Amino acid sequence: MSEKTKLEDIVSLCKRRGFIFPGSDVYGGMAGTWDYGPLGVSLKKKIMDEWWKFWVEDREDMFGVDAAIIMNPKTWVASGHTATFADPLVECKECKSRFRADKIADGISESVTTEEFLETHTKCPNCKSENWGPIRKFNMMFSMHVGAVLPDDDAEVADKNIVYLRPETAQGIFTNYKNVVDTLYPNLPFGLAQQGKAFRNEISPRDFILRDRECSQMEIEYFVRPDAWEEDFEKMRKLQHEFLENRMSLKTENIHELEVPAEDRAHYSKRTIDFMFDYPNGEEELMGLAYRTDFDLANIQRESGKNMEYRDKNTGETFIPHVIEPSIGVERLFLAVLSTAYMEEEKDGKTRVLLKLPENLAPYRFCVSPLLKNKPELVEKAREVYDRLREKYGNVTWDDSGNIGKRYMKQDEIGTPKCVVVDFDTLEDNTVTVRDRDTTEQIRVSIDEL
Amino acid sequence: MSEKTKLEDIVSLCKRRGFIFPGSDVYGGMAGTWDYGPLGVSLKKKIMDEWWKFWVEDREDMFGVDAAIIMNPKTWVASGHTATFADPLVECKECKSRFRADKIADGISESVTTEEFLETHTKCPNCKSENWGPIRKFNMMFSMHVGAVLPDDDAEVADKNIVYLRPETAQGIFTNYKNVVDTLYPNLPFGLAQQGKAFRNEISPRDFILRDRECSQMEIEYFVRPDAWEEDFEKMRKLQHEFLENRMSLKTENIHELEVPAEDRAHYSKRTIDFMFDYPNGEEELMGLAYRTDFDLANIQRESGKNMEYRDKNTGETFIPHVIEPSIGVERLFLAVLSTAYMEEEKDGKTRVLLKLPENLAPYRFCVSPLLKNKPELVEKAREVYDRLREKYGNVTWDDSGNIGKRYMKQDEIGTPKCVVVDFDTLEDNTVTVRDRDTTEQIRVSIDEL
Repeated sequence: MSEKTKLEDIVSLCKRRGFIFPGSDVYGGMAGTWDYGPLGVSLKKKIMDEWWKFWVEDREDMFGVDAAIIMNPKTWVASGHTATFADPLVECKECKSRFRADKIADGISESVTTEEFLETHTKCPNCKSENWGPIRKFNMMFSMHVGAVLPDDDAEVADKNIVYLRPETAQGIFTNYKNVVDTLYPNLPFGLAQQGKAFRNEISPRDFILRDRECSQMEIEYFVRPDAWEEDFEKMRKLQHEFLENRMSLKTENIHELEVPAEDRAHYSKRTIDFMFDYPNGEEELMGLAYRTDFDLANIQRESGKNMEYRDKNTGETFIPHVIEPSIGVERLFLAVLSTAYMEEEKDGKTRVLLKLPENLAPYRFCVSPLLKNKPELVEKAREVYDRLREKYGNVTWDDSGNIGKRYMKQDEIGTPKCVVVDFDTLEDNTVTVRDRDTTEQIRVSIDEL
Repeated sequence: MSEKTKLEDIVSLCKRRGFIFPGSDVYGGMAGTWDYGPLGVSLKKKIMDEWWKFWVEDREDMFGVDAAIIMNPKTWVASGHTATFADPLVECKECKSRFRADKIADGISESVTTEEFLETHTKCPNCKSENWGPIRKFNMMFSMHVGAVLPDDDAEVADKNIVYLRPETAQGIFTNYKNVVDTLYPNLPFGLAQQGKAFRNEISPRDFILRDRECSQMEIEYFVRPDAWEEDFEKMRKLQHEFLENRMSLKTENIHELEVPAEDRAHYSKRTIDFMFDYPNGEEELMGLAYRTDFDLANIQRESGKNMEYRDKNTGETFIPHVIEPSIGVERLFLAVLSTAYMEEEKDGKTRVLLKLPENLAPYRFCVSPLLKNKPELVEKAREVYDRLREKYGNVTWDDSGNIGKRYMKQDEIGTPKCVVVDFDTLEDNTVTVRDRDTTEQIRVSIDEL
């Protein structure tokens, strides 16, 4: 990412090349949602698969779970979300617009009181008046009715059937802890990993895919002996760097560990590190690593009446395991990967846009094309090369549109590392031009050596 | 699947071995939801990845999309879901229980009237009385409010902000058709494929994972020239068999094509084949293949005012493409795979339960174990074998619990094709016992030949 990369440039590339479109675009959009196009799906899937391979398949101490999005509402009572997962909402009495108080006034926190807010003398961003209603707590969980509830049912019937879309995937892991221990009885420490959607009814979604109403999370709850949490925390911290830097090719200098001070930590956490990332629009949280103590399992034990203790296989001790939680949002990681790869280069007075995606994440590894599409002998030969590479590498694309310069421009923008071009010389000597995305250098290579 | 396999046996295995647990089990459950445990996640992911590879990665005419679950509500007006996606609900006036009328009375359809239902003289399944209220249409879409809607807002404000959880993934594809054509301009015919969650507020969820409130769909909308739909339909029909039989190892004789007669087809479809499957609890729909004409794109064009026409690259003609839709539910396919693999064998007066999962779907390909876990030299050697196989194949598990008989029993039940056991002979001659899941035969094999 060069100094001057702007978020808008990336948003524009994403739409232009089919990575990400605004959600429900054809109907004028749906605030806080985004749809992934063909290239976005490919990149997203590669990111999620690399994560799954690194954290689950390549490790013996990790197991997957995949819980339903709609959970028993007791889940959110136990976790505290029903009571506290709320933003401070304020309404302008003049124009009836509603805002998150802490987003329109400087220097106040999420727990701002009405008095504190009024003292800031904030004006309504919409109508510029200063005539505010009281601060109200707005719960960010989406709620709905499950089962046969009808519009004319009274409140008592309706309220009994309220459920929520999960605001985080973590609780879907904790609620499965006991069933996993009962069926697999893994050694401590062990982790349960999950990828899945979470939903937050943001009052004002913003910042492209960073703060949307629907996101994909990748979370691990790593269950440890209470007396071992510090070393396991450290182990997870190092592994995060390995994953982010080696597998996702993020730059070390763009990742900043922020040791969250006690007063800013979630109430259940005794240590939290936010991994901050230099996004085009500034430093923002990329992921979190939190020591959650036995907060969640103890809550579940209390709310469900079921025993959450683990029996140590060697010592026979029983205790509620403590938890280290590395948690990352797919969208945040996706944007970190994209903004690391995004480049603009000046060359011959023109601007070249390219995505320097690493080979393991690029939607296509090769693009194959015939120099001219109206020469059947070139097309036929190029198809041979294409089939061969496709069989070997899988993710290979074909492009015979426009002229060769336009094809390079397109492949640069979608991050294809190598373009292979079949021309008339190929028919003579079985060599092709291989053009490198990053250097734009072209070399002749024998087809057999590809 | 043997003749006597019962659904309950599979449900029981799924819970016992960590494939599938009831959703929110620790809190007493959440009707119509299921959570996947470690082995279930692995099998589900392999099924979904094989589908993606077969239909998207290995084909040039298919592209992925991944739309948000929360869509602009105009989507469901255009698709007809707001008006017609409803079940006939009837309430017993005595005990207030509510039921789907067509599920408790024989021989009536979803469009049953109150009079027709009363003529069936059905008794309440709960209290046995026959005192029914009128049939009411119950829309199965989950609805909720998006944005800063508060409990005391009046109905007008609240209604303006109603959104739905998508009841199908198909519309997330259709709404992205235009953006994909504008960015990639693929040749016709081409398909857009999507995997993702869909939600239906079933009045009475039932039949394990077959009729749940939250399911994962894998759908393709294949856009074709209007005059070519018949041959493209036939192409898709054959490919379905190839996928189901060659990639999923379902048995040809368990799949039955049901040509849906005109009067039973969805209003938009001019031809539909339901692929029925012999599940343990009877023949049920596994997937559908429908010719949807231009119904969806024409609706979107009308509702959005945007042009959905495609311009043929060769002829210059413009037209709205027609659509062939192969649609499959992950859960239905998962259960078809499981019930094909599930076997009970009588041997020496004992019943052996095994899952004959094919190699490409089995959660683990090998299980490696030392004959005895308290002999360090055996454990060390077995670890060597384990590391070696893991590096080569990835999905290898380690098991040193209980005695060797119990380990075989466990690996049979989770479908591991081969168990590799390191014993004292191994230390002498570098051979191991390889035990086959299906035949229970054991052979000695040199470690180098594994």
